[in-house]
Order: sequence, then C-alpha cells, then structure tokens
Amino acid sequence: MDRTLTRPELPERVTIREVGPRDGLQAERPLPPDDRARLIDALSATGLTKIEAVSFVSPRAVPAMAEPTEVWARVERAPGVEYSALVPNRRGAEAAAEAGGFASLQAFLAVSDGYNQANVGKPVAESVTDVVEAIAVGTDAGIPVEASVSAAFGDPYEGDVDPGRVLALAERLVEAGAAGISLGDTTGMATPARVWEVVDRFRSGLPGVPLNLHLHDTRGTAMANALAALEAGVTELDASVGGLGGSPFAPGGGNGNLSTEDLAHMLADMGIQTGVDVEKMAEAARLAKELVGHDIPGHIHANGPRWSPRTPPAPSVI
Amino acid sequence: MDRTLTRPELPERVTIREVGPRDGLQAERPLPPDDRARLIDALSATGLTKIEAVSFVSPRAVPAMAEPTEVWARVERAPGVEYSALVPNRRGAEAAAEAGGFASLQAFLAVSDGYNQANVGKPVAESVTDVVEAIAVGTDAGIPVEASVSAAFGDPYEGDVDPGRVLALAERLVEAGAAGISLGDTTGMATPARVWEVVDRFRSGLPGVPLNLHLHDTRGTAMANALAALEAGVTELDASVGGLGGSPFAPGGGNGNLSTEDLAHMLADMGIQTGVDVEKMAEAARLAKELVGHDIPGHIHANGPRWSPRTPPAPSVI
Repeated sequence: MDRTLTRPELPERVTIREVGPRDGLQAERPLPPDDRARLIDALSATGLTKIEAVSFVSPRAVPAMAEPTEVWARVERAPGVEYSALVPNRRGAEAAAEAGGFASLQAFLAVSDGYNQANVGKPVAESVTDVVEAIAVGTDAGIPVEASVSAAFGDPYEGDVDPGRVLALAERLVEAGAAGISLGDTTGMATPARVWEVVDRFRSGLPGVPLNLHLHDTRGTAMANALAALEAGVTELDASVGGLGGSPFAPGGGNGNLSTEDLAHMLADMGIQTGVDVEKMAEAARLAKELVGHDIPGHIHANGPRWSPRTPPAPSVI
Repeated sequence: MDRTLTRPELPERVTIREVGPRDGLQAERPLPPDDRARLIDALSATGLTKIEAVSFVSPRAVPAMAEPTEVWARVERAPGVEYSALVPNRRGAEAAAEAGGFASLQAFLAVSDGYNQANVGKPVAESVTDVVEAIAVGTDAGIPVEASVSAAFGDPYEGDVDPGRVLALAERLVEAGAAGISLGDTTGMATPARVWEVVDRFRSGLPGVPLNLHLHDTRGTAMANALAALEAGVTELDASVGGLGGSPFAPGGGNGNLSTEDLAHMLADMGIQTGVDVEKMAEAARLAKELVGHDIPGHIHANGPRWSPRTPPAPSVI
C-alpha cells in the first residue's frame, strides 16, 4: 500500500468491431437470413463503426453461416459503418469480392497446429497458403484483408503458445500484404500478463501495423484482458452483442465473447470514446437473445447501465 | 501504438477472502446448517486463508442466514484459516463473541442513505452508531472488527458517490477502532477508473490502513475492477465461490460476486500467489452449484483451468 499512485495511460478512443452476426451466431441453431439481417441492422443503429456481417465458409462445416449473400443482400447498409466478411481462402475471398460492398475481409488461421487442425482440418502451413491467397484476391479487388490469428494466447490441444511464434506468423502475413492483424484468444486462455507480453512483442516487432484483439470469456477473463489490452496501447477490440458466441455445447454455457454492451458501458464510464450508444446496444442484445432463444452472457442488456439500472436491487444486507 | 512499453506493477501475493457462505448464500433459498457447514469445510480445504462463514443478522430480514451458531458449531475449523462473521450492530457482535472462534468480525453500513435505507431501513448516521458499537464490543472481546462500506462506487438509488464521502466515512470508522476497511461495489457500479480514484484517495488519506475490495459483477466489470485494484496496490479482495451472490430475483441472473475460482485461476496464471488450489476451488464451486440447485456465474468450475480444460472445444471456425 506504499506504492506510488499510478494510473495506467489509456487510449482516448477505442474502436469496437462487432462480431456477433458472425462469431456470435456461428454455433447457434441456424437463423433465417431475414433474422440475421435484422440483427445486423439493429447493430448498425448503435453507433458501431465496424461490423463483421457474414462468413463465406462451407455451409456444411458451419450451417449457421450458410447463405452469406442472401443475408448481405437484405442488410440496410448504414453510412458510417464498415462491414466485413470472414473468408477462409481464395474461394471465400472471391465470393466476398463478387458480393461486393465489404470494407474489408478477414482471413483466418491458428498459430498452432492443434487448434488449426481441429478448426479447419489442416496444418498451419497449409492454412498460411490459404490466407496468403485470400489476401491476394482481396487486394487485387481493392479490398483490404486482415489476418485473424486464432489461439494466439494458448491452444487447448497444445497448451501454451510461444509469443515468438505468434509474432513470426504475423510478420509472415503482413509481408504477404495483410492490412492488419487480429490476435484471437479463441478458447479463453489469455490472462492480462499474457496480453501484455503478446501485445508488447507485436508492437516491438511490427510497429505501426494495425492490431485488433479478439477475446473470449471462457474463463472469466475477457473484460480484464480488454483492460490490459488498452493499457498496452491496443485501440481496437472485437466484441459480440450480448457476449454471444462460442460453442453452445460446451459445459457452463460455452465460450462466450467479450460482450459489446458490457465493454461499451465500461469504457463510457471511463471516459473512453467508442461512439456506441449503450442503451441501443443493450436493445440490440435483447433482440439477439430473442432471436437465439436462450439466455446470453452479457450483463447490461439485463441489468441496465450504472446510470439507469433496469430495476433497483432487491433490498438485501450489505 | 507508439507508446512506451509498460506493464503495471502488481503485488506478488493477494489474499482472497471467501464470502460465498455469507454473501453467496444470503439471497438463496435457505440451506440447512449441515449443508452450509459442508460448503465451508470444502472451502477450508482449498488453501483459502480467510472465509466469512456466517452472519448474525435478523433471520426475519435474511432467512438464508438464520441459525449462524448452528452452522458454526458444525464447521471443522481448519488450522490456517481465519473465519469471520458479519455483524450488523452491538447485538450481532455480542452473539458472535459469545459463539467464539472468529478471527475477526465485519460490521457494515453504506456510504449513502439511498442504499443504506433500502438495506437496513435507516439513514447512514444511525448505522454509524451501530457499527461503532459493534467495533467496541468486538474490540473489548479481543476480536478485531473490520468495517464494510457498501455502495462505495455508486448507489443504485442516488447514483454517483463522491469518493470524498467514502474517505470521510472510512476515517470516521478507523478513528472508532475499525481494524480495516472493506469498500463494497455492492450493486456493480464500479469501473476501473473509479477503482483507481477511490483506492488512491483511500491510500492517501488513510495510509497503512488495511483495505479490502468487495466486487460484484452486475455489469460485467468485476474481473477488470479486480485487475485495476491490484494495479492500485490493493492486496486483499473478497470473492465468492462460483461467483454466487446477489439477488436471484434480479433480471439476468442478478448481481453475482467476483468468482473465487475465476480470480484464483487468473492470478495463478499471472504468477500472483493466493495460496488457493484452483482445482479444489472449482470442486467447491461445483458443490455450491449442487447445493443451491441452479447454474452459477463462475467459469472455471465448468470449463476448467487453462492448463487442463474440462473438455476440448467443439471444432468450429476461428
């Protein structure tokens, strides 16, 4: 208690990229395109400036992400919102470019073979080829392609992942033309110390390269990791409406993403601008809950922001 | 992204005071004394060094906390564990002293009339008298009494609470002999910026006075606030087995405390010692879940620690 008073330096403004329509819904019972577009439209009205709208992955592998062009055609594209699409490879990038209107694409792979093999059935080296090809297709079509690196803070099959491997892979993808890197804590294995280490390594090795963090709440650390990320100078975070996401078959309600409305609420109270209207975001979360038909992990949609709780607490003791 | 690399200074060791048997259970359907003692015994085997075991409040006001002496008589008091009891006033402190064996008592009040009135039906000024009397009784009996200050980061009825008021009340209670202060975010209104401000004010105004933080997860900020607290030099946090706590009648599953096993897990991965065995703590959380008969908010009891996930994630995409 005798340490010097310190307050970490934090960014004045943070961009939240909403991934609910993609990561939030991909493990749910498939929703019809109308409902998926309706959720995207509700999110577009919250002040969010980036929304990952659809995914051009195999509908056999991920049935809930089928019909991306049908969803995308129904979306009322809001001015001021940059919509992106997830693409696994050259073919996905071609389909997204063909559909048109995306501000950027996300190509993805894991840093470690364990998770990459489970996720897409091939070793990392082969996925690098897929991602490099997707980058080339997008870039040729005038669409920047970001590379999402999964399991960047640990692999549930392999355990710890050396931050040096994360950096080396990111360097390889940036050389290949990636417009930015998203580091994914895909199964919630990050803690603040790991966030600081990986982000510091990334910033030292790839200064100036745009960095996004994608955090899951599998082990209850997502919001603490978000704070740690901002302390390390990160200014863009993925988050999912209502905290929706991850496998609904996992025990304990599954993975869960960092909840967009919870994050926007916390940052608003800290004076960090996100542009997101917390009440509208909570409303979008209630819509998401209605659409998926089960409880969702976020808090603000249920309990309200601190400046206007939805219901006063029941009297208790202490 | 061009800021100097920094990593906040953190304590090497943090004490977790387990409040599940009290704050975790107080709003649940009342459990029989045998079950409450069984939970305390399971918690005593986890390496925790402080457990708030029972509460000497009115059984009419808080039926789930009835029969504290019956529960306490059944507890196998473990060496190395300091057990405490919550007491509202002189009479509670007398009953606790009479029961014997408590290492400390917790007297409580809110900083603001709004919550204090809702919680105990009287203005703060009257509760100050109660707490001061409880401190005198405990001190005379040779038992240190800590004062728990609720709503220290905001009051759901009054809104923001000036940190100066928190400090003034804490000073008053320390003058009256309080052995330490616990600042409670009773309805989850804290965010990291507020934690830094209140803790800095406290440390400046009351240097050397033991400080505990009691955090709720009503708005998804508990773990981020815990990190912020450690960054501000706090070395003792309350937490509740499985995150149990708060009103089960509130929308969204209610308040929820900071989850003990989630906190112990995160700190273990960060190299911060708590003495808590995460697997045993998760086992205690599964017992708590069984006893209360519904899902609980914590994560590690369901998903396992990062070093041994309970089930590998279902293959997905990204």
